[in-house]
Order: sequence, then C-alpha cells, then structure tokens
Amino acid sequence: MLAITQYQDAFIAYLKEQHILRQPQNLYEPIDYILGLGGKRMRPVLTLMAAEVFDCDYQQALPAAMAVEVFHNFSLVHDDIMDDAPLRRGKETVHEKWNLNTGILSGDAMLILAYQYFEQYRPEIFRDLAKLFSKTALEVCEGQQWDVDFENREDVTIAEYLKMIEYKTAVLVGAAMQMGAIIAETSEENKRLIYDFGLYLGIAFQLQDDYLDVFGDPETFGKQIGGDIIENKKTYLYLKAMAFAEKPEAEQLQHLYSIQPADNTEKIQSVATVFNATGASEATREAIKQYTLKAFDTLNRMQISEDKKQALRTFGENLMDRKV
Amino acid sequence: MLAITQYQDAFIAYLKEQHILRQPQNLYEPIDYILGLGGKRMRPVLTLMAAEVFDCDYQQALPAAMAVEVFHNFSLVHDDIMDDAPLRRGKETVHEKWNLNTGILSGDAMLILAYQYFEQYRPEIFRDLAKLFSKTALEVCEGQQWDVDFENREDVTIAEYLKMIEYKTAVLVGAAMQMGAIIAETSEENKRLIYDFGLYLGIAFQLQDDYLDVFGDPETFGKQIGGDIIENKKTYLYLKAMAFAEKPEAEQLQHLYSIQPADNTEKIQSVATVFNATGASEATREAIKQYTLKAFDTLNRMQISEDKKQALRTFGENLMDRKV
Repeated sequence: MLAITQYQDAFIAYLKEQHILRQPQNLYEPIDYILGLGGKRMRPVLTLMAAEVFDCDYQQALPAAMAVEVFHNFSLVHDDIMDDAPLRRGKETVHEKWNLNTGILSGDAMLILAYQYFEQYRPEIFRDLAKLFSKTALEVCEGQQWDVDFENREDVTIAEYLKMIEYKTAVLVGAAMQMGAIIAETSEENKRLIYDFGLYLGIAFQLQDDYLDVFGDPETFGKQIGGDIIENKKTYLYLKAMAFAEKPEAEQLQHLYSIQPADNTEKIQSVATVFNATGASEATREAIKQYTLKAFDTLNRMQISEDKKQALRTFGENLMDRKV
Repeated sequence: MLAITQYQDAFIAYLKEQHILRQPQNLYEPIDYILGLGGKRMRPVLTLMAAEVFDCDYQQALPAAMAVEVFHNFSLVHDDIMDDAPLRRGKETVHEKWNLNTGILSGDAMLILAYQYFEQYRPEIFRDLAKLFSKTALEVCEGQQWDVDFENREDVTIAEYLKMIEYKTAVLVGAAMQMGAIIAETSEENKRLIYDFGLYLGIAFQLQDDYLDVFGDPETFGKQIGGDIIENKKTYLYLKAMAFAEKPEAEQLQHLYSIQPADNTEKIQSVATVFNATGASEATREAIKQYTLKAFDTLNRMQISEDKKQALRTFGENLMDRKV
C-alpha cells in the first residue's frame, strides 16, 4: 500500500491526462475549471486504496476513482446553484463565473461523463459499478432534498437528520470504497464490509464537521467558524440541544435561531454556551466516537491481512484528526 | 407488428405501473407530474417497434423505452429552466409549479432513474444500452449548448445548424431505435442502419418543425405559428434565406430579426414573404424530402422482411404527415 499523498498524486496525474476540454467549449470549460479547483481528492483516493486493500493494483481503479470525483464535483456545481453560493474553494462557483444555464448544463454533462468512465471495465464489472453508482447518486439527490425540506420544518428528528447526512454525504464515501472492492473482485462479504467502513466513517466525519463548525480551531478548520449558526442550520448539535434542553434554554435557542444580527459574534457565543450547557456538545463528541468505532469494527470481520487493516485504521484516524 | 396506437397504449400501461412516487415526496412528485403530462410517447414507441422489427417481443424493450422517455422528460425539465418557459404541454413547467431548485434536483434524479431502467437487462446488454445512452445524452447536452451559443452568433453556418439539430433532437431518435435493436440482439449492421433510419428521420422531422412554424396549419400544428420568428430564432429557413438573399432582402430580414413589435402579425407575414421570395422555403422542403429519403434508403440495406420494412416506412410517412 502507498501513502495517502502518493494516491493523491497518482490520481491528480491521471486527472490531468484526461482531455476534458472538448467542443462546445462553453460546455466543457466549466467542467475543466471545477475539476481543477483542487480539494483533497479524498473520495477517489479511497477508491484506489480500497482496490489495493483487496490486492488489486490501484491503477486499475483509476477510471472508477475519476467517476467518483466527477460525480462529486457535479453535485457541488448543482448544490452551489441551489445554495446560491458565490465561492467554492475560495474561487468563483460555476454559475457565478459563467451563468445559471451553464451551471445546470455543465453539471448534467458531468453526471453523464461520470458514467462513461465505467465503460473501461468489462461488462460484469461495468454493470456492478454503474448499478452501485446509480443507487448512490439517487440517494445523494434524496439527501439533498431532505436537507432542503428540513429548512422549513421544526419537527426534524435525530433519526431523520442522521438519515439525511448518511444520504447526502456518507453513501458516496461507502460507494467510493466499494467500487475499489468491486474492481478487485473480492468476496461479497468484504464488499459489504468496506462499504459500511466508508459509510460509518462518512457519518462520523459529517458529525465532526457539525461540531467543528462551532468548536473548531479557526486556524485549521478551513471554513468560517459558526457558519451553520449564522445560517440557523439545524445540525446534530442543535437537534440534540433542543432534545436535552429544559423549556427556558429551548426557548432561548429557538430565539437565537430566529434572529440574524449584523454582528454574529455574540449569537455564536450564546449558542455555543447552550450547546455545552445542555450536554449537546458531549453527546455529539460521543456520537462521533461511536460511528468511528463502528467503522473500525467492520475491520475485525474483513478478510484481509493485518497490515491492510492497520492501513485503513490509520487512514480513518488521520481523517478524523483532520490530518488528511 | 402492432399498430402505433397499440405500442402507445402498451407503453402508457407500463408507465402507470411504475412506482415513481417515493420519499422524499418533493423530489419524486415533480417527476411523476412531468411524466404524466402526456405527449405522443414517440421515442419509447420507436424503441418498442425497433425491437419487433428485429423479431423480439416488444415487452422485453419496455424498460429501455422507459429509460428513453424518462431521459427525454429530464431534458425538458432542465431546458424549460434554461428557456424560462412557463408552460409545457399546456401545463405549468416544473420550475414554475415548484421552484428552480426542485427543477434542477428532480431533473438530476430523472437522469439517474433513466440509467437504472437498464439494470433489468443482463450485463452485456446493459453495457451496450448504457454506453449508447451516455454517448447520446452527452450529445444532447452538446446540442443544447450549441443552440444557446448560436443565439449570440451571426455567423452560424448551415452545416453547424444541421449538426446542432442532429445532436439536440435526432440522436435520441436514432438511439431509441438502436436500443430496440440491441435488445433484439440483431446484427451490428442492422443496429447501425436502424440508428441511421431514426437519425435521418429525426433531422427531417426537426426541419419540418422549422418549416411548419411559419407555414403550418394553425389548426393542426399544435404550437403558435411564427413562434420562432417572434423569438428571432435562426432556423434552417432563416439561414437559407440569408444565404440566398441579395443585399436588400438580407438587410430587410436582418432588420425584421432585430425588432420585437407588440403585434407580430405583420412581422411574421413579411418574414414569410422573404423566405418564399429567396427560395428558402423551397430549399427547406427539399431538405426535408432528402433526409426522409435518406432514412427510407437505410431500409433497402436492412436485413429484415419486406413487411417489417413497410411498417417502418409507414411509420415514417405518418410521422412526416404529422398523423402520429
């Protein structure tokens, strides 16, 4: 197995070999742009790693890894339109740099391009990959729809929230890893387990994202601290706080989530205090820990060598420590 | 072979059996809505017909026909956003009835759902269908992009325009028919020929659409006469007129295509007169005839029985007479 940075480099080299820039230019230029914006390429790296975990040369998994990355970027382009986001990785979003129609159409083309990368595999593998991909892509759409729906609902349960982040974020992590397993043609049991490994790690990662949004180090988190609070976003922390709070605290939190002050410093501070006082922070840390352990627990049942298990464990630990 | 109306009925019965309405409702309800709006279901009918032309029960082609229809409706939903169209088949468009975000997201889900219908075939067939589908879908996106690009260009050539309508409209007709041939597992030559049959017929149909927009019978055309002229759309008629026109006529036409009067009656009449005087109308009728003949010519080389050829010819004649 290679180091994470080596998989990243191998993937980026492969990405650069692709001839994205075709005619009509106005369709393909935005695709080339968004794919070149960078990011940690975590999902395609997981596809490559999973292939090697099951004793297959990572190079065989490059087209599938590319499909995962193209799909992920497709979802960013369309989500940025829906969220009216001006920036992505510090650069203009596609619909901002070009226009709404370009964002829609180039996004559509990316979804199709993603499927085309599976054509490099023989029929049985192609079918398994495309089937998993379709199921996953549809779940990502469903997760996005739940997320939109939740904005206008006051009765979202913890279970519903967990299902939403599972669909919107975690299933693609699970699928990225299972694709490596499919290409390696490992056992059905191993395919199932590596999917669960990615899925649980994806949920843990997203819950941690909710947590770090409030309690993260501004130096290392990469995003604006308190962003979710400013947007009155009902995250795991909020839902847990509402579940645990006595009436006065619940009313205070609901009030804080109804205002949009010019300066959010005090609001963020007050919300953080309620999150701590109600035990929501503690409960979130515990949930992150439990999902991470659930991910690692799948390794005990996976039929691979001990050093492969250790590689996956190390990756998971680095991911949760935000070192990768 | 059944009659066209029987294929339509069989397809509509199959469509009604599909359980489109799943959770989250806000994602699937718009899909159910647009698929229920009606239309002649010409593309899926062609898939069913093509399967029977090559001696395969049309019922085997129903999932692929469904994929074609779902994809076609996906493109309508996203195109209607791009064109800011309020109505589709006399009813509200999806983004108008719901909102922009619903239009984008439900459209995305439809593109994925289309692929899923191919999962009902065995790996080799699945791969051939999905591969053809991806190629075609990407071409449709490219055609749409050319169409958008052409709005801001004064130097569009006839060849470019033909390529645009080929990609935007005709390739899906060709692909719909080739899917039937793939499912029937006919020869590669037959697969190629039935694609060309659909492609040429699709081009002829679109050119006829351009023609009928100006010279059609308001009673039977179904769309507003002169719609393209009102929008200053550079159709085949316009490009031919500009190519044939002497300077005064060309300047008159350019002027007419620069104004947007409150009452368009006179503008439409004047443009129609120029189209006739320059020979553009005659040239368009001739092009329609030539593409129709090219479609029928593929039948001579197709290895199927004479009655099957006659069925395809009858379909083509009815289509061009707008009887189906």
